[in-house]
Amino acid sequence: MNSEGWSLHPQLVRDTIPLGDMALSHVLVSKDANYPWLLLVPRRPDIVEIIDLCEAEQALLMVEIGRVSHALKAVTECDKLNVAALGNAVPQLHIHLIARHKTDAAWPKPVWGQVPERDYDAAALEQFMTAMREKIWVS
Amino acid sequence: MNSEGWSLHPQLVRDTIPLGDMALSHVLVSKDANYPWLLLVPRRPDIVEIIDLCEAEQALLMVEIGRVSHALKAVTECDKLNVAALGNAVPQLHIHLIARHKTDAAWPKPVWGQVPERDYDAAALEQFMTAMREKIWVS
Repeated sequence: MNSEGWSLHPQLVRDTIPLGDMALSHVLVSKDANYPWLLLVPRRPDIVEIIDLCEAEQALLMVEIGRVSHALKAVTECDKLNVAALGNAVPQLHIHLIARHKTDAAWPKPVWGQVPERDYDAAALEQFMTAMREKIWVS
Repeated sequence: MNSEGWSLHPQLVRDTIPLGDMALSHVLVSKDANYPWLLLVPRRPDIVEIIDLCEAEQALLMVEIGRVSHALKAVTECDKLNVAALGNAVPQLHIHLIARHKTDAAWPKPVWGQVPERDYDAAALEQFMTAMREKIWVS
């Protein structure tokens, strides 16, 4: 698919680590270790809302949300998935996919602005990313 | 479509006013007048996550999110849409569709937990609901 003219928003570059690419979306891992937290960013320039994508891309986005959701749930054994397209601060369309546990730092509140970000232990991050890659692209 | 065995979660009954039905989703308006705020609730029993729906229903949900998003954006002339499936407090799958303005009470933060709920003026609510119905079901 054609992603000409698209580049990742600088704020998302700062806050995330690239995991890989699906047909439509660039997949990122949040650097905040408080929650297993992925982001999907459709590689289309100048897209702010889901409805700025054409209908075929919206359908594909839902397929990719489903695929990553299944993987995230399996890898983290979470109690709940949080799926959200907000974009009040960073306008480039990005979909948050967050694995929530009833024991996590913000439960049951939404994660945004609740507790300070926490750095990953390098080994834990590598293990999480490897497990996610295997579920999304191998299984 | 078969919605046998489905009923709206009591917390959603308390917090919303019914707007109407789409093929898959029951459409509700939040009673909180701080933000034009709709909810889509797929009429399927025992569904918690988007991925608990079958793939055809997931695709239809995206179509309905798109249709309501277009209507909400047109009616409210909002600066941003917030689309979210959280469900940490109310497990029944429900999709928030919130019209955000840069002048609203919580901007740029997510709306949950920011400011006390505010009651609608009855005429303003009726006007909003009529406009939304016309956009979703007539236009």
